[in-house]
Amino acid sequence: MLTKSQIEDAANRIAGHVRTTPTVELPSGTFGLPYPVAAKLELLQVTGSFKPRGAFYRMISSAPRSVIAASGGNHGLAVAYAARELGIDAEVFLPVTSSPIKVARLNEYGARVTLVGERYDDALTACRRRAAETGATEIHAYDQAEVVAGQGTVGRELDQQLAGVDTVLVAVGGGGLVGGIAAWFDGSIRVVAVEPGNAPSLHDALRAGHPVDVGVSGVAADSLGARRIGDIGFDVCVRTAVQSVLVEDDDIAAARRAFWDEMRLAVEYGGSTALAALRTGAYRPEPGERVAVVVCGANTDPGDLVARP
Amino acid sequence: MLTKSQIEDAANRIAGHVRTTPTVELPSGTFGLPYPVAAKLELLQVTGSFKPRGAFYRMISSAPRSVIAASGGNHGLAVAYAARELGIDAEVFLPVTSSPIKVARLNEYGARVTLVGERYDDALTACRRRAAETGATEIHAYDQAEVVAGQGTVGRELDQQLAGVDTVLVAVGGGGLVGGIAAWFDGSIRVVAVEPGNAPSLHDALRAGHPVDVGVSGVAADSLGARRIGDIGFDVCVRTAVQSVLVEDDDIAAARRAFWDEMRLAVEYGGSTALAALRTGAYRPEPGERVAVVVCGANTDPGDLVARP
Repeated sequence: MLTKSQIEDAANRIAGHVRTTPTVELPSGTFGLPYPVAAKLELLQVTGSFKPRGAFYRMISSAPRSVIAASGGNHGLAVAYAARELGIDAEVFLPVTSSPIKVARLNEYGARVTLVGERYDDALTACRRRAAETGATEIHAYDQAEVVAGQGTVGRELDQQLAGVDTVLVAVGGGGLVGGIAAWFDGSIRVVAVEPGNAPSLHDALRAGHPVDVGVSGVAADSLGARRIGDIGFDVCVRTAVQSVLVEDDDIAAARRAFWDEMRLAVEYGGSTALAALRTGAYRPEPGERVAVVVCGANTDPGDLVARP
Repeated sequence: MLTKSQIEDAANRIAGHVRTTPTVELPSGTFGLPYPVAAKLELLQVTGSFKPRGAFYRMISSAPRSVIAASGGNHGLAVAYAARELGIDAEVFLPVTSSPIKVARLNEYGARVTLVGERYDDALTACRRRAAETGATEIHAYDQAEVVAGQGTVGRELDQQLAGVDTVLVAVGGGGLVGGIAAWFDGSIRVVAVEPGNAPSLHDALRAGHPVDVGVSGVAADSLGARRIGDIGFDVCVRTAVQSVLVEDDDIAAARRAFWDEMRLAVEYGGSTALAALRTGAYRPEPGERVAVVVCGANTDPGDLVARP
């Protein structure tokens, strides 16, 4: 079972490799919300998402000769970046549907990249076949203890930075980030999982009582498109009573635009999903409740954001 | 003479209208620098620059019926935004060379906008002619005591957020921001003014011993393009021994790209100027010296930033 002390260990081991990302407290009125909201700007992390936290911790813990990973994009970037920093060979498998922005970045980081299949799962199958041939150590995108512990350092930082926060909203794909954050807080504050209605991996698993396969589509599928929630994240969410809410693609897109219009932040759809739950009222805080959103990814093409004259 | 207590008063009066912007401490290696650097992310301020601090303080202090301003763009945005928030009529004059991004935003904020002349100075002349007709209160872009005191709240925040910083680097146009920050620190830390070589308003004034007209051109002219440093900012810079260094347009453009590549921040040229001084070595910290850059503006078209596959 993932514990706070493992997350402490992760924080100590990855320090210097990743950034302590800032938080900002935004007054009532921001994003059209009638209450203040804090934002954890994890999109300013190296590689533009939270993923290097888990990738570094897993690699530093296991000290592999070479690594291999399947990813919707952000985890691949993190593995390629961490491998380059640590002097380890890396190979990354992505579905052909991955954001071109992410593929371009991945090539810059010097990993061997293979595009295969339509979905993350197809890339994972190809990745494991290849790992059996090469003996490379698999760095899973979300369902390994060190990976979830690494992502949990987001929760630890948020806890240090935002004293008195009551509720934190986190987007969910495979459950590594929400699992890590929920494990850190261990029920001491409310953690709300936000998922696209067309990629409801945690929502459907909570209803079924165990992880189940779900359909995956929509604007955020390249970062939140896991077909099945990871066992580790799921167990933490059940144990700590994480709530799950759903939002629609149009609301995610509107939240992404609000980040640009009101903060000049280029946020990817997955990184805008948590805010969408506040803007739509999918999650409504009580009067005086202090809420925070984790803005977890920036790997988007900003070309469509600017209001041209 | 601008004092710390006036900046304290400004901070109290504008609280709730502007954001406390976050800082981030970046490890050695970031931006290719062989030492750590902190960044004050003032580009996340409302309207995408530091300018609302001064605009709000001047408007709240003077309680005008209507306001008028000339601007390269960011000050106009700030005046229009603050006027809308405070329920005051606003009219803004910009040179025709202003960034289309800024003009589009300004129209959204509901101010009356006039584009006139090639440079900020031409807009200022037209603005004052109009003010004489309408009796509107002028909110100067940099050379009014309340405006400089408002910008000084950036220094106050940075002081609270980054204990132990030795040196802060600030871009200079008309000298409102550097003057406010230098007044806050009052010589207790080193303030380095960074200017484009083709818009050296402070640099040439320090050499002459008094404000002088300078030529203005280059990529950052729409935010740093004042023809003459303001008297208030100049006096503070002399009194507190602000150092001045120059950088070239190519280096400013490279710093802007580095902010995107390494932090996914879309920073305008003026906002990238302080970092350029570190990357070029125009300012070289001593071993162990703790440096911070103020990232002061985000009003840029991000369309050219993304690395397309």
